[in-house]
Amino acid sequence: MKIARFSHGETIAYGIVDEEEHELVVLKSDPLFAGYDPTGERVPFTDAKLLAPVIPRSKVVAVGKNYHEHAAEMGGEAPAEPLLFLKPNTSVVGPGDAIVLPPESERVEFEGELAVVIGRIARRVSEADAASVIFGYTIANDVTARDLQRRDGQWTRAKGFDTFCPLGPVIDTELDLEHGTIDTSVNGERLQHGRLADMVHSIPAIVAYASAVFTLLPGDVILTGTPAGVGPIVAGDTVEVTVTGLGTLSNPVRSA
Amino acid sequence: MKIARFSHGETIAYGIVDEEEHELVVLKSDPLFAGYDPTGERVPFTDAKLLAPVIPRSKVVAVGKNYHEHAAEMGGEAPAEPLLFLKPNTSVVGPGDAIVLPPESERVEFEGELAVVIGRIARRVSEADAASVIFGYTIANDVTARDLQRRDGQWTRAKGFDTFCPLGPVIDTELDLEHGTIDTSVNGERLQHGRLADMVHSIPAIVAYASAVFTLLPGDVILTGTPAGVGPIVAGDTVEVTVTGLGTLSNPVRSA
Repeated sequence: MKIARFSHGETIAYGIVDEEEHELVVLKSDPLFAGYDPTGERVPFTDAKLLAPVIPRSKVVAVGKNYHEHAAEMGGEAPAEPLLFLKPNTSVVGPGDAIVLPPESERVEFEGELAVVIGRIARRVSEADAASVIFGYTIANDVTARDLQRRDGQWTRAKGFDTFCPLGPVIDTELDLEHGTIDTSVNGERLQHGRLADMVHSIPAIVAYASAVFTLLPGDVILTGTPAGVGPIVAGDTVEVTVTGLGTLSNPVRSA
Repeated sequence: MKIARFSHGETIAYGIVDEEEHELVVLKSDPLFAGYDPTGERVPFTDAKLLAPVIPRSKVVAVGKNYHEHAAEMGGEAPAEPLLFLKPNTSVVGPGDAIVLPPESERVEFEGELAVVIGRIARRVSEADAASVIFGYTIANDVTARDLQRRDGQWTRAKGFDTFCPLGPVIDTELDLEHGTIDTSVNGERLQHGRLADMVHSIPAIVAYASAVFTLLPGDVILTGTPAGVGPIVAGDTVEVTVTGLGTLSNPVRSA
């Protein structure tokens, strides 16, 4: 099942995506907290503007260097344990929203990633139980000011600017992780290609590891790392991240 | 004026601290969002359990190495620009709550700090305007798993564990920053002593810098760095951080 958050006229709502009818089945509230309770209304895709499908109340956790070839292109090896960092919820934007290039950086790069949306409070869950705390999956772009990342040492600033965490277009509660691929293109040219099965640390391993550090809350999002092929974006570009079964997260890029 | 968040019987409320009468003037809602609107009720200090005076909806921003002598004891110099990192809101606990030592670390340390509580949405504010977005000040302990901080490189895990951000006991909206001192003691022995005026980057400079990265939201908290003298804590210890005019933030330490 696919879930969207969208604006429709003056209202913002959650809906189930009906791909056959090209409509959104409007829900009474956020299904993360209130289950699937339809209002009876349906909104055609053409009348809805999709928004980030979740706004994390607590945190966006991200994992660095989780594909071997990307670790190599960054000049190192994938770490033995997941390397965690945080992006603030103020960096989240939705599909179609602009990635705004801050004047502090001269080199901003895209990083297409699969994102996990947490559905239940999770504290020190085992890998075997990790699936039970996952609500679903969406696509993320872990936008990074590469020059500031190198200069600061800590990645917080480089990865934390407003608009540096596009999420969407929808949450899929039943994604095929075994056979899926992730691709990122800029202006139609494919620059990243990876297989979700090639992650160094699996999603259950990441969820278990992260939940041993911080209690994960419903609506927390975990970015699972980017494959090889990261590169710069400039004003006027359009970045598209596509994951099998999840569609495409597309964002234009503009100057501040 | 001093503001507290507290539990009293079954309810949680905000109140203005009446130091003469040893009472809390109960407010109808969180003054960060709803101003100072008393219910008419007053609660004696002895009937109230103080809680973390703010739960950040978005982020706890922290600044590394912001006192010269602490930067030196960590083996470096204070950075030319504020070095930012994030602690998740799930790490926040209140006065008297236990700091829980995670089994992943063999060396957890205290770091007493002054904390700024943001009161208004702030995006690229100037140093001159920084005071206008500050709601008040409280005390923080930036608890850190020193071994994991060194091992991971990124500080997120080392500083992000649950209970690693005690805040309190109250928020003061009118703190004297020029003459205040900060002291940290463990089991009554004073181990850190600093003057707030000795920060490398001033509070207006930090607020301006952070707000150029992330939009700051009401309830966001900024930790302003720790003076020299950090050291380990073990189960059974009590850590107390005292700031002139703000009182003492006291937390016991226990094993997981």
